[in-house]
Amino acid sequence: MPFRLQSNLYYQLTGPAAILCSLRPHRSEGQRAREESLSSNPEFAPLEIEVAPFSNRLTRFEVSNIEELCIHYEGVFDSEAETVEAPTHAKPVSYPEDPEVLPFLFPSRYAPSDRFSQVALELFGGIESPFAQALAIEDWLFENINYLYGSSNEGTSAEDTFLQRQGVCRDFAHLGIALCRALFLPARYITAYCYQLEPQDFHAAFEVYLDGRWHLFDGTRLVPLNALIKIAVGRDAAETAVASLSGNIISTGMEIYVYHEPESDEAFYRDFRDELRDRNQSLVLP
Amino acid sequence: MPFRLQSNLYYQLTGPAAILCSLRPHRSEGQRAREESLSSNPEFAPLEIEVAPFSNRLTRFEVSNIEELCIHYEGVFDSEAETVEAPTHAKPVSYPEDPEVLPFLFPSRYAPSDRFSQVALELFGGIESPFAQALAIEDWLFENINYLYGSSNEGTSAEDTFLQRQGVCRDFAHLGIALCRALFLPARYITAYCYQLEPQDFHAAFEVYLDGRWHLFDGTRLVPLNALIKIAVGRDAAETAVASLSGNIISTGMEIYVYHEPESDEAFYRDFRDELRDRNQSLVLP
Amino acid sequence: MPFRLQSNLYYQLTGPAAILCSLRPHRSEGQRAREESLSSNPEFAPLEIEVAPFSNRLTRFEVSNIEELCIHYEGVFDSEAETVEAPTHAKPVSYPEDPEVLPFLFPSRYAPSDRFSQVALELFGGIESPFAQALAIEDWLFENINYLYGSSNEGTSAEDTFLQRQGVCRDFAHLGIALCRALFLPARYITAYCYQLEPQDFHAAFEVYLDGRWHLFDGTRLVPLNALIKIAVGRDAAETAVASLSGNIISTGMEIYVYHEPESDEAFYRDFRDELRDRNQSLVLP
Amino acid sequence: MPFRLQSNLYYQLTGPAAILCSLRPHRSEGQRAREESLSSNPEFAPLEIEVAPFSNRLTRFEVSNIEELCIHYEGVFDSEAETVEAPTHAKPVSYPEDPEVLPFLFPSRYAPSDRFSQVALELFGGIESPFAQALAIEDWLFENINYLYGSSNEGTSAEDTFLQRQGVCRDFAHLGIALCRALFLPARYITAYCYQLEPQDFHAAFEVYLDGRWHLFDGTRLVPLNALIKIAVGRDAAETAVASLSGNIISTGMEIYVYHEPESDEAFYRDFRDELRDRNQSLVLP
Repeated sequence: MPFRLQSNLYYQLTGPAAILCSLRPHRSEGQRAREESLSSNPEFAPLEIEVAPFSNRLTRFEVSNIEELCIHYEGVFDSEAETVEAPTHAKPVSYPEDPEVLPFLFPSRYAPSDRFSQVALELFGGIESPFAQALAIEDWLFENINYLYGSSNEGTSAEDTFLQRQGVCRDFAHLGIALCRALFLPARYITAYCYQLEPQDFHAAFEVYLDGRWHLFDGTRLVPLNALIKIAVGRDAAETAVASLSGNIISTGMEIYVYHEPESDEAFYRDFRDELRDRNQSLVLP
Repeated sequence: MPFRLQSNLYYQLTGPAAILCSLRPHRSEGQRAREESLSSNPEFAPLEIEVAPFSNRLTRFEVSNIEELCIHYEGVFDSEAETVEAPTHAKPVSYPEDPEVLPFLFPSRYAPSDRFSQVALELFGGIESPFAQALAIEDWLFENINYLYGSSNEGTSAEDTFLQRQGVCRDFAHLGIALCRALFLPARYITAYCYQLEPQDFHAAFEVYLDGRWHLFDGTRLVPLNALIKIAVGRDAAETAVASLSGNIISTGMEIYVYHEPESDEAFYRDFRDELRDRNQSLVLP
Repeated sequence: MPFRLQSNLYYQLTGPAAILCSLRPHRSEGQRAREESLSSNPEFAPLEIEVAPFSNRLTRFEVSNIEELCIHYEGVFDSEAETVEAPTHAKPVSYPEDPEVLPFLFPSRYAPSDRFSQVALELFGGIESPFAQALAIEDWLFENINYLYGSSNEGTSAEDTFLQRQGVCRDFAHLGIALCRALFLPARYITAYCYQLEPQDFHAAFEVYLDGRWHLFDGTRLVPLNALIKIAVGRDAAETAVASLSGNIISTGMEIYVYHEPESDEAFYRDFRDELRDRNQSLVLP
Repeated sequence: MPFRLQSNLYYQLTGPAAILCSLRPHRSEGQRAREESLSSNPEFAPLEIEVAPFSNRLTRFEVSNIEELCIHYEGVFDSEAETVEAPTHAKPVSYPEDPEVLPFLFPSRYAPSDRFSQVALELFGGIESPFAQALAIEDWLFENINYLYGSSNEGTSAEDTFLQRQGVCRDFAHLGIALCRALFLPARYITAYCYQLEPQDFHAAFEVYLDGRWHLFDGTRLVPLNALIKIAVGRDAAETAVASLSGNIISTGMEIYVYHEPESDEAFYRDFRDELRDRNQSLVLP
């Protein structure tokens, strides 16, 4: 089931600049590129930087002597989300042994989980299993936070979102992460291409580490859970920005296109969570 | 030149709990353990967790059915700080290629560098070389922030410190890091044992990535720069806590002892930075 | 029903200083002083400052050439809280006409109501009458915020309390005020002496302007509502501090004593709100 | 020297709403209206609310059954700023006796002066006289804060401005006020019409209470100090908003026009502060 992905980032420049972009989906066993290209117009040499251990694939461009720039990505990916049995393990009192998981328990720039200890306990502390807690957090986000385009900005943190009760996908993810970590559930931020997101845009969601795997959660309920093609993972948006800029450059726009062939309304639908819930299942992205 | 290190952490408990502690100095070519032990009283099995790529050596204890606990660390380390020529490379417009360095450019919980873009540029933007910028930041911290025990708490961020003009070593380090990152200098937080720190305590400082190495900076000027035995490195205090607690446990105190044999007042002195400056040198911890 | 009030504030000094204290209960028709004295030891001349329009009675001492100071207040007051019928008027779309009420609709230092617009609407927007809204806010505070001595400090705002879910009387009042103002209910902060508060201390609560009068609310449920002897009113704690200090002076302690003669367990009880609710009444302080 | 003032506020509505507007200049001995009118289109009855003790003249409109609204103000005022000798009194250790001045020493929503104690002392504590301190604060604002349209929003406080080093007139005023209060100088916020402000807009500045009068300061240096026609005064922007809205209404724009007859380039010039400084004078608005 191939997804065809395309994204264009547009910039204006007044001097030398660098762009660090995160447009290439990460690669894993379940998510493979059939074809892929990333280039700039005017053309500059891309430098690929792959960040271990999660294989985020960043690309750096150093540019100068231009006034306008377009970064163009195009790829075709096979990506198969995996439905797994809902995790049932009991609540942990402890820190995970896996050193790769540990950092996702600590507070970060936009998910300052240390500030949420009390409120997370009060809202979700009585729930038995960690999976049920994470699911309850996803539900709470959907029911309590209004998705409102333009209601937040690049400085908005989970604290703001909790208070202001509005935000975009990024804010939903940060608040979900902060609440999970406050309950000692390792949680991380993902960026993704998404099929059937209207209007087309990059998407963000969060993953929670349960029974040895990272399970997908998304409080926006705007997208089919199994239609995400993961780009990058990180503590929060601070380390998974689609594009970081240095120097004399400003963004002037972007375009995103995600196709599936054949166009499929059966396989992908927004209320896929309900179906998973009925089947006592959870979703794991490749 | 062996340092003898000892630390004791004391806790009270009212139920099962977990402690994740970071008491063992990290090991590297220039910092080697002659002997070392980490144990708890009452005795529980320690689980060692080594976090790549920086070899932070964490230890987890899971405890229950006790009311009091002491974690006891003791070690003898050879650690040789290296004086190197002051870096002279010009200011970068770009992001570093090394994927291990990249994360230290992004804002973190206690060093939200995105908020310091303007002020960092105004205060230090006119300085030519990155090393001179980092040095100017260290000087600025010493001249503008009052070291005042008890003036901050575990929620204090670099924003608070910048405004309130007071803090402890942790706060000096966070503000230094935030200012560096705002200037596109990768910067990270370190915890350390420190010889001749009065009163004896854990210490925190920051490192800046210049010319391919992490150079040490410390705006407190409270300690001899070459008397630090590095324990752990991370984005900020959120991921290098001496001890993180989960469950029914509170801290009741700690003791730290650092000896050098022979006791040496010649090799270690607070104004070692001045000597380095005179010699046009910088310090790199092992 | 006379209340006998006594308070002592203790200070240490290292130079000239000024204290602006708010220890004298405000006077009104329903709250009259039988006797009253306010003095310092060593003795300095007090300057009385009465702030219109609410008759807060402040006292300023300018002191020098001393190392220790005690401010001593003692008074006997007749104060009769008034039970009135619960206000039933419908929700206002508008701003109040009374210029004295208007300022209590606007955000203040510790009650930044502008930040609570959404959350107040979601939690209490569906409630019909303003009085029922204010009562629901009082209930919500009691049910969701933990009274925990030492859990907040002088910088804590309603935003912090909403997130951290803990605080002292001051914090309960600020959050109540912020939520009321966000719903366009004028709300103000009061300080008070309180009979049967354990341990004895100054108390804070809030008043909401409904049907032309200021009705008392207190989310702590720690005190008998009708046992408050009002000292001062203001936008928030910023302008009703028991003591504001200038110069070389620090607080070293305070003592508060409130007696009623005869000692009365019948007239005053913590769950007086329940009784008011049963009777469809509200309380107005003199 | 008559100023002709005109302002139009435009709104869209989707239901009943109220507007509380502050468009009429306050009246005082030195600032008198020759003619004046305030009306709405479609026409609704205005309710005048005059807030003592500073004579802010607010107007409330309650509107319904309309989709668009324009509030139109027009007036001709004689307003004479007064140049006075620069105050020379020594630094106060104490609180002012005047109860009307006292509130302007306390922290407010956008000028949380309690957070600026240390930094104000470090930057301006060494300056001898309060007037010189206030002048130094005005200079510091001009030199350190960039006037940048769109760089702040309605939630921006003096803390943000101090850190971000950019803002608009409102932010300059708030930071000036916070710094003054932290030095125990009573300071308040004013809104004003301003002749020769480019582009035409409402303006904000601050006043400091020295030697018994409120002296004008403005860190933006964008306007002739003696060309301000004061509208309202208050603790900060929270209580001097040009328009506060309640109900189903959003702002869609505004227009401001300020004329002087004859058009005068001689009497009004931006660097009027320099001239005052040379003459050892200060400016007091009527």
